[in-house]
Amino acid sequence: MKFYCELKKMVDNSYDIETGHGLCDVLIKDLQEGLAGRVKQFAVVTDDNVEKLYAEPILDKLFAAGFSADMFVIPAGEKSKTRKMKEFLEDSMLEKGYRRDCCVIAVGGGVVSDLAGFTAGTFGRGVPFINYATTLLAAADASVGGKTAVDTPLATNLIGMFNQPKKVYIDIDAWKTLPENQISSGLAETIKHACLADEELFCYLEENIERVFSFDREVCEYIAQKNCTIKYRVVMSDERESGLREVLNLGHTVGRAIETVSDYRLLHGEAVSIGLIAQCLLGNRHGFISKENTRRVADLCRRARLPVEIPDYISRTKLVRKLYTDKKVRDGKLRFVFQKEIGEMMCFGENQYGLNISEDEIADVLSKWE
Amino acid sequence: MKFYCELKKMVDNSYDIETGHGLCDVLIKDLQEGLAGRVKQFAVVTDDNVEKLYAEPILDKLFAAGFSADMFVIPAGEKSKTRKMKEFLEDSMLEKGYRRDCCVIAVGGGVVSDLAGFTAGTFGRGVPFINYATTLLAAADASVGGKTAVDTPLATNLIGMFNQPKKVYIDIDAWKTLPENQISSGLAETIKHACLADEELFCYLEENIERVFSFDREVCEYIAQKNCTIKYRVVMSDERESGLREVLNLGHTVGRAIETVSDYRLLHGEAVSIGLIAQCLLGNRHGFISKENTRRVADLCRRARLPVEIPDYISRTKLVRKLYTDKKVRDGKLRFVFQKEIGEMMCFGENQYGLNISEDEIADVLSKWE
Repeated sequence: MKFYCELKKMVDNSYDIETGHGLCDVLIKDLQEGLAGRVKQFAVVTDDNVEKLYAEPILDKLFAAGFSADMFVIPAGEKSKTRKMKEFLEDSMLEKGYRRDCCVIAVGGGVVSDLAGFTAGTFGRGVPFINYATTLLAAADASVGGKTAVDTPLATNLIGMFNQPKKVYIDIDAWKTLPENQISSGLAETIKHACLADEELFCYLEENIERVFSFDREVCEYIAQKNCTIKYRVVMSDERESGLREVLNLGHTVGRAIETVSDYRLLHGEAVSIGLIAQCLLGNRHGFISKENTRRVADLCRRARLPVEIPDYISRTKLVRKLYTDKKVRDGKLRFVFQKEIGEMMCFGENQYGLNISEDEIADVLSKWE
Repeated sequence: MKFYCELKKMVDNSYDIETGHGLCDVLIKDLQEGLAGRVKQFAVVTDDNVEKLYAEPILDKLFAAGFSADMFVIPAGEKSKTRKMKEFLEDSMLEKGYRRDCCVIAVGGGVVSDLAGFTAGTFGRGVPFINYATTLLAAADASVGGKTAVDTPLATNLIGMFNQPKKVYIDIDAWKTLPENQISSGLAETIKHACLADEELFCYLEENIERVFSFDREVCEYIAQKNCTIKYRVVMSDERESGLREVLNLGHTVGRAIETVSDYRLLHGEAVSIGLIAQCLLGNRHGFISKENTRRVADLCRRARLPVEIPDYISRTKLVRKLYTDKKVRDGKLRFVFQKEIGEMMCFGENQYGLNISEDEIADVLSKWE
């Protein structure tokens, strides 16, 4: 006997990404106008780096507007992206009486938004989530796509879910207080986006990258928006990451492994920068990118104050071993995506952007890094 | 500057619920025909009660059909519905090399399907999930609605997500090996469904309930299907549990609290049975249900071999305190839904099925239990 459980419906997860300077008041106004629906409590999740600078002012303004809110602070850094920290947030919220009629506001960078977004997605089987991004990296990487996740000892970003925010705020004022390596880290994802989809952006960066470090208003806004547009275009074409979305992994195969093996001494973007170069060097061997364009990518990364070589303290052997436990590994073979010169991706067949690379070849490239 | 991230789409989570006797071969055939898509590994999640009886045969047939599969066993019982057990499943799967191209098959009752369904929903940000239900309770409760969750020390079922299975199998043969109290427990949810939506089913149960204990084929299949139909009707009218879906909590306000306070000595359905009576007694005071119909509900529960009184070992004080930490509590007031005589629900306004009940009244009813 069969019963057909029909569950077909139109889902609308659309949201705005607002870029600007000091968006705290805009956030409060949005909430007053019902952005999160009828919500009784706001959980402001942040890390101890931005707590004082951005989360507290937001909390104060929430109080001033008559909202009930609490702050939940995690230690800054990638090491906080764990199931344990998610439990900590859940238990702290439950202790303060949070139930299903609450809303989570992430204030911080990618780690905070990944963790808070995942927590919001499973708290009470899903409560509204708002992303107040204070870093360039978050603007570039975490504001489009709805990916949230935590790391486990055995895998990076493997436990998580797709959870779209109600709105993303990209506060460029906040960039000014970031340590320089955080700006660089965000630029790595920006350069990645340019490499994979937008030669014009690449040239723009070649002309203007220094102006990011002086927080030139026009350049920063342009870059923030460009990142969203490119990522949105890719993600929209393939929301479940079956094919095209894989191109966003450009530089990430080696990048993620280096990040882990460095025990997070390297920031995500710093590791991605090295990964981008690795992919160029490999791609050059296969004829996907010229020596000249490889040099341009490396130069741009260098001018973004990013590392373009594997630091000495990282063991090549460990790195190769780590690569084989990466979640993108299929059939025990390393899968890479490659840029085609600058601004395009190599495609190896219908929806086939990945290419299997042998362990030997990887080891060879790593040992002969130019 | 604003960027509109448009994410509108048609989502189809429809699936079949198949009721029958010994559906293992049907499952294998479905998998061969691509039920789970292109999947490399199958994680069979089960508990140590049904491991030998049902999970092993399924595992063997998966192997025989050439599939790669592993079994992951959790201790039987509600106490396994924890974040820790979810971590255990995740780590065990990761250790065996499971990545995003896998499928989770839950073999067991509600605890297994809740935990396995939640695990599948966040593993690799979501892998296909199949529910092979071996208990009447799972058939009645867990096969429609897509709710998955774990418990935390502070809240029952609060951390979780909506995750629809690819298919549900209700294997009635499996009921025969259940301890009697498990059959009773499932009947409690069946009686609940009858109370809230189907007088005809209630009368059918009054005539046939004993035949469930002799596993009468016709009666069992009828009951299994009726449970699905009723729950589906309610869930479909309100997929996000904003209004109507609340009626499924009939008997659960007190039921869940008793279940926890009993430290799970009472099975879920046993606790719900007591909760149903509590709701009838309260409802009778408010004129929602007659004394005669209250008696009919109690009689039917008794004939289903369910408790209709609060066991002596449960402290009334603890119970009332526990009620106030239940996630359904709003504004510090206890929220109840009530049946309107038999087969209908009380409605207190548009989409308003809940009524706030004072702590004193609850305490009074508990102390004067008839």
